[in-house]
Parts: sequence; structure tokens; C-alpha cells
Amino acid sequence: MSTPLTALAITCTLKPSPAASSSDLLATQMLGALAGHGVSGDLMRAVDHQISPGVETDMGGPDEWPAMRQRVLDADILLLVTPTWLGQHSSVAQSVLERLDAELAETDAQGRPILFDRVAIVGIVGNEDGAHHIAAVLFQALDDVGFTVPAQGSVYWNGEAMQTTDYKDLDRTPEKVSASIATTVRNAAHLARSLREDGYPAG
Amino acid sequence: MSTPLTALAITCTLKPSPAASSSDLLATQMLGALAGHGVSGDLMRAVDHQISPGVETDMGGPDEWPAMRQRVLDADILLLVTPTWLGQHSSVAQSVLERLDAELAETDAQGRPILFDRVAIVGIVGNEDGAHHIAAVLFQALDDVGFTVPAQGSVYWNGEAMQTTDYKDLDRTPEKVSASIATTVRNAAHLARSLREDGYPAG
Amino acid sequence: MSTPLTALAITCTLKPSPAASSSDLLATQMLGALAGHGVSGDLMRAVDHQISPGVETDMGGPDEWPAMRQRVLDADILLLVTPTWLGQHSSVAQSVLERLDAELAETDAQGRPILFDRVAIVGIVGNEDGAHHIAAVLFQALDDVGFTVPAQGSVYWNGEAMQTTDYKDLDRTPEKVSASIATTVRNAAHLARSLREDGYPAG
Amino acid sequence: MSTPLTALAITCTLKPSPAASSSDLLATQMLGALAGHGVSGDLMRAVDHQISPGVETDMGGPDEWPAMRQRVLDADILLLVTPTWLGQHSSVAQSVLERLDAELAETDAQGRPILFDRVAIVGIVGNEDGAHHIAAVLFQALDDVGFTVPAQGSVYWNGEAMQTTDYKDLDRTPEKVSASIATTVRNAAHLARSLREDGYPAG
Repeated sequence: MSTPLTALAITCTLKPSPAASSSDLLATQMLGALAGHGVSGDLMRAVDHQISPGVETDMGGPDEWPAMRQRVLDADILLLVTPTWLGQHSSVAQSVLERLDAELAETDAQGRPILFDRVAIVGIVGNEDGAHHIAAVLFQALDDVGFTVPAQGSVYWNGEAMQTTDYKDLDRTPEKVSASIATTVRNAAHLARSLREDGYPAG
Repeated sequence: MSTPLTALAITCTLKPSPAASSSDLLATQMLGALAGHGVSGDLMRAVDHQISPGVETDMGGPDEWPAMRQRVLDADILLLVTPTWLGQHSSVAQSVLERLDAELAETDAQGRPILFDRVAIVGIVGNEDGAHHIAAVLFQALDDVGFTVPAQGSVYWNGEAMQTTDYKDLDRTPEKVSASIATTVRNAAHLARSLREDGYPAG
Repeated sequence: MSTPLTALAITCTLKPSPAASSSDLLATQMLGALAGHGVSGDLMRAVDHQISPGVETDMGGPDEWPAMRQRVLDADILLLVTPTWLGQHSSVAQSVLERLDAELAETDAQGRPILFDRVAIVGIVGNEDGAHHIAAVLFQALDDVGFTVPAQGSVYWNGEAMQTTDYKDLDRTPEKVSASIATTVRNAAHLARSLREDGYPAG
Repeated sequence: MSTPLTALAITCTLKPSPAASSSDLLATQMLGALAGHGVSGDLMRAVDHQISPGVETDMGGPDEWPAMRQRVLDADILLLVTPTWLGQHSSVAQSVLERLDAELAETDAQGRPILFDRVAIVGIVGNEDGAHHIAAVLFQALDDVGFTVPAQGSVYWNGEAMQTTDYKDLDRTPEKVSASIATTVRNAAHLARSLREDGYPAG
């Protein structure tokens, strides 16, 4: 059987637990699909934790990012899921990206950026449009700090213009979303395994 | 009665005439609504004209932009309408913006940027998401070259994620789109009239 | 003499006071320039206040947004200034936009969106690129909730690619930034005065 | 020695040959670096070819995209390089993306999207800011149609705000750009080789 892998899902809803969240629903579905590829995963709702404003690995005081960061470093696959607000990723998602920005200065034992060989995939939900733009922003930021993005690495659902239905309120998961989840996680698992076995060379 | 104004709609579908176009439909609806505010308008489908690649007011040769440019300068209101491709404004729309970029270097008799006192509004259609992002890009580019953007200056329609229905194929115009058209054009006409009567001061 | 106006600057640095901030520097310069046009202003550093995650006007508990919101409503001109992180507006700026999103549901005595007749301008600083994109995002969001964007309504400074110098560390304000400040605030004051005297008509 | 690979660089300057182009310079540097990793490559300047407006693989008539498309399909690595205009990728680059959008409907012998197992990297140049945003847009579009994006898959250079110096006019290539080229192409070659040897599984 193939190498077991781990995934960490960070969801970026603005609503603290235990409120229902479309982001959490999509993340849970994607983690479920990952499990079918030998990837075990956990979900963290970012807004439940104190992520201090800043761009350092540890902002001190009540900052809970250092513990989250360790979980990011421990996982082979990062799944970042965000709602759509005003067509953008949430402020919570941007906080996570800002904190990950510190990893640009961190290197591993081989002198490579510390996040190399890890794979990132993203999920976007929203009653209104924004998914293509948000996938773009997340891919760029995550790729820049060292993650690799598999083919078709995003899963999304946006409602029709000016509607108010949320992903979590749909009667059923649209077939195209399910198909997209299947492709994205299959590619992520394959790529994470390749990079685990044969990582990027040092410079 | 209030000062008569003029509008120019430039539509940025990838399909040459006479193919039906969702962008043209939305532009026609918006021009119709503008007429109710004393604004007479024309529609140009950009892809029917040779807009040479470049960022000058006149690229020479077969370039038809100089004539289009004159019509932009002659209008009080520019309405730019684009389809959504890969979540972005069309290549045709980007060509129009690139050519308008030359206006940054042009000044009027008072030494002001030549496009000052003109109002820009935008329309976005697409079977898939992108409207918020595209409105953002168009507003920034048009504002930068000298247009003013009225409150709620964009009208859009995007279908639900991964659907294929086009705006022109809807059974009827969604009520929220109609309401948005009414607000956008009312604000545009008001603002264009204000700026016509009392323009931006010179530096 | 012309009608006295007021402006509120909200700066979106990630650094709490009293740390020096490039965003605050630019905001201060712009408020200074506004004063020359009869516009008195205040500056709030958003990160110094508790802006609870959410998209309502009042999230309850320790939420300090309601007081900030009142100041936004009381001002003729909103100046939103953000740093550039990973090419994006800061998480703090996105929080402000998310809270302003609630205004879409609020109307004034005439039944118009409550933010109509107010003008928004923006400032962007960063040691790395992002200004055009961020101006786009801010314009779209602010325009959507009801603000009007004057011609050339953004002021920005980004350093050369992969440099680390901040705006506040420049030996002097670049001449082009000063010229841009002058134009932006002159246009903002003019437009705010026009809209104060002759606001958008109700529907 | 490792498997020989091929790369195709498509540059998206607005200037037809033989005008000097910053995009071509960066593409040439990146192809040179790829050669050091056993990747042979070619460069096509897109504006020298007729890319008809549309989103089909073949628009008929004078359309030269079908031949370009074949070269994309034949290469292991696609390098897309664009200038920055108004903070956006060029209209020429958007045309290329629009034509690649057709590949979403094409499958290979295994029933997978036809572009799977290919790697995309990007280059962005501009006298003004835009690189982060443009990298985001290009990554999203290319990933969506089937390419895989290696860690740190973009190389860019933007000048300081409101300057006019072009990449091709720099006295020398900035050290950080050279370092970025080295990392990006090393990662691209590694990833393309991995995917060539062990491609994504079919669904």
C-alpha cells in the first residue's frame, strides 16, 4: 500500500464554533475524500484561535499561531478553505497567509525553504461570485511560500449573482462539486506522495 | 429639463457581429435605462474593429482605435461591458484598457488629464463567477486614467458555479439585475451632469 | 468660502500603536493635503481597536466597530490606507471591508443606501508590488457599499521587486507620490462638496 | 542522466518582432537556466501570430493557434511570460489563456484532462507593480486547465512605483531575480520529470 500521508485543513469562516459553516462542510468533504487515498487529516477552524496580527512565526503573548504553524509543518497537504466576502477571501484567510509569509525566511536541513515538498489545495464557497479570483490569490500566496499546487487544485461553489443561498443550505452537493473534489484530492495525494519520496533538490 | 448627455458603450465579447452576445444585451439594457435619464448613447462591439496591440493613442496602419478613442472623448459616460473568461475580463476588454492607458499622458486645455469630468460604469456577464474581481479591475483602470466612478457603478450577472447558461439565455432578466441597472445608470447620469456643470479644478 | 467637510482616515497596518507605520504616514500626508481644501480629518488605526469577525453592523460583546462605523457615517470622505502583504490588502483592511458590507442593507431617510453621497479614496504602501490590484479591490468594495470614487482616487508607493525598504524609511517622499496626493485629495474634496450640495436622487 | 525534457516559452509582449522586449529577455534567461537541467526549449512571441478571439481549440480561417496549441501539447513545461499593463497581464496573455480554456473539454487516452502531467511556470516584468496579482491569475488559469505549478513557480521584476525603467533596460539582472530564476526552473524540471515518470492517476 502507498505511503500514509497527513493533511491539515484550515477553514477561514468568520463564524466561531459551533456555528454551522459552509467552509467547514466543504473541508470535511474534502478530508473525507482524502481519506480514501490514504491521507488522514484534521480540521482547524482558524477563527476559534487567536492569530495575532503580524508576519512573524511567533508574535508572542496570546498568539496561538505557533501551535497552528507546527501542524502545518507536520502535514504533507495543506487544505485552505475560505468563504467569499465582497468577492475576496476572508480576513481570517488573509491572516493565515500573512503568518505563513514568515516561512519565506525559514529553511530546512538541506537549506531549502521549509515548506518545500508540501502540497496545497484550496476550497472556496460563497453565495456570491469570487471563486476564480480567490483561488488565484491563494495559489499565488501558498506557492510563493513553498507549497506545490497540483493540477486542478481548487474546489469551489458560488451561487448565482445576488442570491443568498449558502453551500451548506443546498439540498445536495452538486455533482460537479463532487467530481471536482474527487479530482483535486486524487491529484493532491499523488503529488504529495511523489514529493515525499523524491523531494525538490537543494540549490 | 436637465442637460442632455451622451454615453458610449463598448462591449468586449470575443464574438464578432452578428453573433448574439450577452455583453451586448446587457449594454443595450443599460443604454435603454440611460435614455430615461436624458442620456443618448451608442454601442460599439470592440471585436468588430481592429484595435492594434499597444499603449499609444494611435498605433498607425490598420489601427481603428483612434476613431474609437474620439468617440470615448466625445461621450460624458463610458459604459464598458465584458464577458467573464477564466474569471477575468476578456482579452478584448484588456486591449481597450491598454489603449486608454495612453490618456494618462494627454491633457486638456486646463492642463488636466484629458478624461477628467467623464463618468465610467461597467457591466459584467458570465456563466461562471468573476464579476466582483472584474469590476475591481475595470474600476481601477478606468479611474486611474481619469474617469469618475459613481456609487454602485457596476451591473453584473454570473451563473451558479460550473453552470453553462449565459445571460442572454435567461428566460427573463433577473429582478435584481434590473434593479441594479436602474441604480447604476441613475447615479451615472447624476454624477456626469454634476461634473459637466462643475468639473474638477485644475491643479 | 466653500462648505467645510470632514474626512476619516482608517489605516490598516498590522502593527498596533505606537509602532511607526508607513500606512499612518501616508494617511497623515493625505489628511494634511485635505486640510488645504477645507476638509478636517481624523485618523484611526484599525488594529488598535477590536473589530470582531463578521458582517453585521454590530457583532456585540467587545466589538468596537459600532463606534468606528458611526465615525464613517459622520464623515464626508473615507480614506482607507493599507499596507501590502503577499500582494494583497491586509487582513485588517479586509475586516473593515467585511464590516462595511453590512451597510448594503441600511438605508437613509430617502430610502437610499446609507453611504450614498460619501466619497472614498485609498492609499497603498508596500516594500513590494500590489498597489494596482489593491486599489482595484478597495474601489470595488467601497463603491459597491455606496461610496463614490473620484478620478485618480488612489495614492500608492511600492518599492522595486524583492526590496525591503518601507515607505516610512524613504529619505523623502517621492515627487510623484506628492503630486498624486495633491490630485487625489483635490478631486475628493471637489466631489464630496458636489455630492453634499446635490446628492444622488432616490429611486 | 535524467530524462530529457522540453519547454515552450510563450511571451506576451504587445510589441511585434523584432522590437526588443523585456518579456523575451526574461523568457530567454529562464530557458537558458532550464537548459542546465536537461530541458531544451523554444520561444514564441505570441503577438507575432494570429490568435483569433475565441475559446475553441481552432477558430478557423487565419487562426494560428492550432499550431501553437500543438507545441504546448508537445512540451513538458510551459513558460508563460507577460508584461504588466495597468497592473494586469497583457491582452495577448489573456488571449492565450482564453484559447487554453478549450482544453478543459479535451481528454487524453486515459480519459484525463489533456494537459495533465505538464508543468507551468510564469514570468512577469513591468516598470510598475502588478507581479503578485498577475502570477495569481496565471497560476489559477493554468492550474485550472490542467497544469501543475511547482513550488515558487514565478519569476518577476517590477520597478518602483511610478518609474519608467523596463527590465530590459536594467544595467544588470538583479541578483534576486537570478536567484529566483534558478529556484523556479530547478523545481519545474524536477516536477516535470516526476510527472513524466509517474503521472496523475485516471479517475
